[in-house]
Amino acid sequence: MTMSLHSDRLFPADNHTRQIARQLYQSVKSLPIISPHGHTDPGWFAGNQPFENPAALLVQPDHYVLRMLFSQGVSLESLGIRRKDGAAVEVDPRKVWRRFAEHFHLFRGTPSRLWLDHVFGEVFGLTGRLSAATADQYFDHIQSCLQQPEFLPRALFERFNIEVIATTESPLDDLRHHQTLQQSGWRGRVITAFRPDPVIDPEFEGFIDNLKQLGEITGIDIQGFDDYLQALRQRREYFKRFGATSTDHGHPTANTQDLSLQDKRELFLTVLSGAATADQAETFRGQMLTEMALMSVEDGLVMQLHPGCYRNHNQALFENFGRDKGADIPLQTEYVQALRPLLNKVGTDPGFNMIVFTLDETSYSRELAPLAGHYPALKVGPAWWFHDSPEGMRRFREQITETAGFYNTVGFNDDTRAFLSIPARHDVARRMDCAFLAQLVAEHRIDQDEAMELAYDLSYRLAKEAYKL
Amino acid sequence: MTMSLHSDRLFPADNHTRQIARQLYQSVKSLPIISPHGHTDPGWFAGNQPFENPAALLVQPDHYVLRMLFSQGVSLESLGIRRKDGAAVEVDPRKVWRRFAEHFHLFRGTPSRLWLDHVFGEVFGLTGRLSAATADQYFDHIQSCLQQPEFLPRALFERFNIEVIATTESPLDDLRHHQTLQQSGWRGRVITAFRPDPVIDPEFEGFIDNLKQLGEITGIDIQGFDDYLQALRQRREYFKRFGATSTDHGHPTANTQDLSLQDKRELFLTVLSGAATADQAETFRGQMLTEMALMSVEDGLVMQLHPGCYRNHNQALFENFGRDKGADIPLQTEYVQALRPLLNKVGTDPGFNMIVFTLDETSYSRELAPLAGHYPALKVGPAWWFHDSPEGMRRFREQITETAGFYNTVGFNDDTRAFLSIPARHDVARRMDCAFLAQLVAEHRIDQDEAMELAYDLSYRLAKEAYKL
Amino acid sequence: MTMSLHSDRLFPADNHTRQIARQLYQSVKSLPIISPHGHTDPGWFAGNQPFENPAALLVQPDHYVLRMLFSQGVSLESLGIRRKDGAAVEVDPRKVWRRFAEHFHLFRGTPSRLWLDHVFGEVFGLTGRLSAATADQYFDHIQSCLQQPEFLPRALFERFNIEVIATTESPLDDLRHHQTLQQSGWRGRVITAFRPDPVIDPEFEGFIDNLKQLGEITGIDIQGFDDYLQALRQRREYFKRFGATSTDHGHPTANTQDLSLQDKRELFLTVLSGAATADQAETFRGQMLTEMALMSVEDGLVMQLHPGCYRNHNQALFENFGRDKGADIPLQTEYVQALRPLLNKVGTDPGFNMIVFTLDETSYSRELAPLAGHYPALKVGPAWWFHDSPEGMRRFREQITETAGFYNTVGFNDDTRAFLSIPARHDVARRMDCAFLAQLVAEHRIDQDEAMELAYDLSYRLAKEAYKL
Repeated sequence: MTMSLHSDRLFPADNHTRQIARQLYQSVKSLPIISPHGHTDPGWFAGNQPFENPAALLVQPDHYVLRMLFSQGVSLESLGIRRKDGAAVEVDPRKVWRRFAEHFHLFRGTPSRLWLDHVFGEVFGLTGRLSAATADQYFDHIQSCLQQPEFLPRALFERFNIEVIATTESPLDDLRHHQTLQQSGWRGRVITAFRPDPVIDPEFEGFIDNLKQLGEITGIDIQGFDDYLQALRQRREYFKRFGATSTDHGHPTANTQDLSLQDKRELFLTVLSGAATADQAETFRGQMLTEMALMSVEDGLVMQLHPGCYRNHNQALFENFGRDKGADIPLQTEYVQALRPLLNKVGTDPGFNMIVFTLDETSYSRELAPLAGHYPALKVGPAWWFHDSPEGMRRFREQITETAGFYNTVGFNDDTRAFLSIPARHDVARRMDCAFLAQLVAEHRIDQDEAMELAYDLSYRLAKEAYKL
Repeated sequence: MTMSLHSDRLFPADNHTRQIARQLYQSVKSLPIISPHGHTDPGWFAGNQPFENPAALLVQPDHYVLRMLFSQGVSLESLGIRRKDGAAVEVDPRKVWRRFAEHFHLFRGTPSRLWLDHVFGEVFGLTGRLSAATADQYFDHIQSCLQQPEFLPRALFERFNIEVIATTESPLDDLRHHQTLQQSGWRGRVITAFRPDPVIDPEFEGFIDNLKQLGEITGIDIQGFDDYLQALRQRREYFKRFGATSTDHGHPTANTQDLSLQDKRELFLTVLSGAATADQAETFRGQMLTEMALMSVEDGLVMQLHPGCYRNHNQALFENFGRDKGADIPLQTEYVQALRPLLNKVGTDPGFNMIVFTLDETSYSRELAPLAGHYPALKVGPAWWFHDSPEGMRRFREQITETAGFYNTVGFNDDTRAFLSIPARHDVARRMDCAFLAQLVAEHRIDQDEAMELAYDLSYRLAKEAYKL
Repeated sequence: MTMSLHSDRLFPADNHTRQIARQLYQSVKSLPIISPHGHTDPGWFAGNQPFENPAALLVQPDHYVLRMLFSQGVSLESLGIRRKDGAAVEVDPRKVWRRFAEHFHLFRGTPSRLWLDHVFGEVFGLTGRLSAATADQYFDHIQSCLQQPEFLPRALFERFNIEVIATTESPLDDLRHHQTLQQSGWRGRVITAFRPDPVIDPEFEGFIDNLKQLGEITGIDIQGFDDYLQALRQRREYFKRFGATSTDHGHPTANTQDLSLQDKRELFLTVLSGAATADQAETFRGQMLTEMALMSVEDGLVMQLHPGCYRNHNQALFENFGRDKGADIPLQTEYVQALRPLLNKVGTDPGFNMIVFTLDETSYSRELAPLAGHYPALKVGPAWWFHDSPEGMRRFREQITETAGFYNTVGFNDDTRAFLSIPARHDVARRMDCAFLAQLVAEHRIDQDEAMELAYDLSYRLAKEAYKL
């Protein structure tokens, strides 16, 4: 069995449309990768050490893979995921890999399958399909590759033709890896992004301690709201020194606020005391988004909002294994009322740039396209997470474009910690955008020359400009 | 005019994709029918008497047909639907049939049209299109068929190649028809399913009386919550004796609860006293879903949840004609918060299997696929009721597959009381699944051999396994 | 560069399906235009004066165009939109036109682009694509056309083959232009429609004054609810004299009420006193929809409901420039519970006809199709505003048809104040309906002769009948 890595993959079946898609794709497939938002580990590039083994590289850190296997009865223990209580889990990476290979059919029709096949074929040069029968052959081949210098993180970075990649760090991070990188002389551009959830969300694990740590790092004695804002301002400046051009915010809702100064100060004291109710915490988060927006006007950082996820839905799994194991579930998310306070404050400010994402596709045509198609500061981020997939991308373009056009969107984000899948993900996005544009051309809704220009914009230019890269 | 029963119906227009769809369909079109959820009358198979006439068979019991005719000004009286007040209604089945035939164009573009044409063509061998002009010819032909032995219920069951069919009964039902069937020696497999709404929903018509009846049937004096659970447990066992492998729950929302034992006992007493408020009734229903789930862990019955319908929206129609006359309307339905108490209790228990349906398609990609793509116990039921249609099925696969894969779905349910349409409905589902798979193959997203295996799984194997049949 | 005005535009790429679409379209493309709902200025047809200049005709009044330009940083001042404070704005229409032309690429993939290209090509005979380079040529050509008699409003009306067009007026309007038209001897049929928001929405600007004015116009001293209803009844009769066959209601939600007479009378007094809370205002609006429905039963006017828009979301823009500048944003909208009081009152009354629209596409398959597929009085209006677009129309048919059929929809509304775009909009609708029908034929879901009949119905007959034109 060969794997499905056909050169026409994801292009429309209709022959005429497919030919247009091919032409468009030819013009963009080799463009450098702009990766303005993601979760790769900067330590990989700073240290440039070999990746450990196929399971540790491709199975254990991938929450898409874990959730699918878990949903079909494969325990996380049997996949070698460390338990918090230290109880025994599988330690042999080959056994983990075999378990994964035996269940590879589960991924039929999912983007994980497309990404993995791309990694197997394009990165490792494998040709048969992964299965129980080929598991060991795959394992051995990948394992031997990983020992070679051309599979070290920096070599892959260069081979992947990455022009720039952003990682994501907490304000409490000292950015040591980014410091190392800056001093290393390596030309790969790895920048940070400012993700302040741990110090602006009163319900974040360890919030009060985090504030203390923020005070220590900045040398500011955080007694009141003004001190607190000052400390945040200082950290934003620090992040900018390591290339940051954006902030990112992962709130449960898109709620924003515009309280009076006195209300803000009082609310902060309540929050600082640890006595905030759930409602007060939500109000505080909402106000802090507006504060972050105001700081963005000052310092030019592009603001990203990723709302609407119920984190750690499975309580027992969270207690045994911690975060990011595939148990986060999207929630219905309202934007029109929620973003109004912030947008009325800075939505038309030429110095402000905001990119909003959603896990609730119903908001595409009803809320986000109309908002982004009006407010100069607002753009819609690409199809995100569960929707970072061929059908998800198709729905995104079909539901966003007619109201917001192409130019109120910002190209593609891979948003991943799975470093090897980055070229695969950008390739899927480029193919799907070319397929969408090809249909518009085939139906005489835009002209071929416009589609060529758009293919370039969606694959490269818009991301670069929207994130000021 | 010929009717639209083309051998390529529902296959994609693109020639290459259509050829793939044809091949896939050829491999599954003759597989036996697994009908794990529906509302056929077990009395038909127990008694094996001729169906009465075309109107009584194909028009009067079909709420899809009634609602469309009613929406265009055809009164239920003129269709011979019995009024509760005994006022006169049309009694001549031929006149009812003519009225239906005159309005047959209303069904253009609806699944009812596909199902009816299939019944006319495949079951009765009719070839012209139904219209005012052909009404009598149709009526006479069908009427004469119904008198023949090969159109008796058991003969049709065999001709339809039904491997197993589940009916749905209340815990208060004595299952006499299933008893008759068991003793009959007939080899057709007709099983029951346990639908306890009448005794677990405090707002169900006659709830208090139903509880009394439950006590009488089981010989348990239901004074408290523990007696009540015991009575339910006993009825579940009784249903299992008549083949039941599943329970079904038709609640207004997907709300579940996990109360303390004391709270449960107190709430039950309030409910038993008839004094429960609407909120308490909702809490009780939610708790009872969790109790049913716990019993499923014990006795192995697969749990089905069909939430989110506003029953009897048209008050006057309900008063004049009763339930199930086409006046039920879907509601927005939330699953993420609602199911969490139940899923946190038993969602990873290997002994628990739950199948959730929805009338709110917005939950497919946002809630149900992410939930089913994580919790081992949870699977997503097929496109239901208003969405049991070509476009509905297409949206289901497009919005579910990328996150939950194919293997967290459970094949097709016909969910019908329209016995003759069962082959038609399964045929539409098989065609649409093959069309979807053909597109994946044509776009090189899966391979042909995988599509063949999936076509079999979606048409036959998954339903059989999910329902333990 | 030529513009994208291909004769096959919007038809499916698949050759066989495209041929069916062409045939269907040939049969309907020249049918007269029925425009039962819109916002053209009756003064144009009454006065029959030349349109001023290209910017004033095609840019400044078009909120779709304004919002897109504004979203990409083009100020409304630079487009010559009058500020309320009288501050300077661009006064040279040529400069406004150039600004628009420079940004024309923003409209790629939007319906505005399709409409504008149609106007440029079909109305003005222009052939190159609009851009910075061709801006002046476009301006001069259009400007010179506008001075010619064949570009006067009545001449265009006739050239556009408009059989009837409805404008929309407030009950406080004296309908002077419609009077002029009635007396003019011109055969063009321009009728009014009754839009009572200013006198039934307690939160409408100047509501109390509006009520006073209503009393003066009707000669009724509005002291209580009964006087008020009488005044409204009188104005409806007045509107009928100028051809009105419909009312229209632009409420924030679809909420309806059915209060007791005493409650209505008391609520009206509160509302009249100006002391109504937001909740009371909402209840009053809901009750007034039911009252309007009851009057429709009496006087036969067809009732239209357009709910679910957050008007003037951008507060500063509203203060500087006023309404309808592209800052209205759709809201999630619930219909099932909201419409029940009204539908239970008159939803099966043969004398009542209601057409409901939505900006929330999630309601199509979940709420509106099921409601319209049951209640005889209710029909679903076409894809509206942000969804009046190729993809929007496709989703409308795909999500409505299977449950409500074609005959519970009402053809197309252009809903526009952009007079020149009316043929373009109807053409897009006809093309998209033919494309949809062609797919049904190609997939053997309906027959060719049925598609021909449906194409006629959707393009012409249904609008005419639904609006009693």
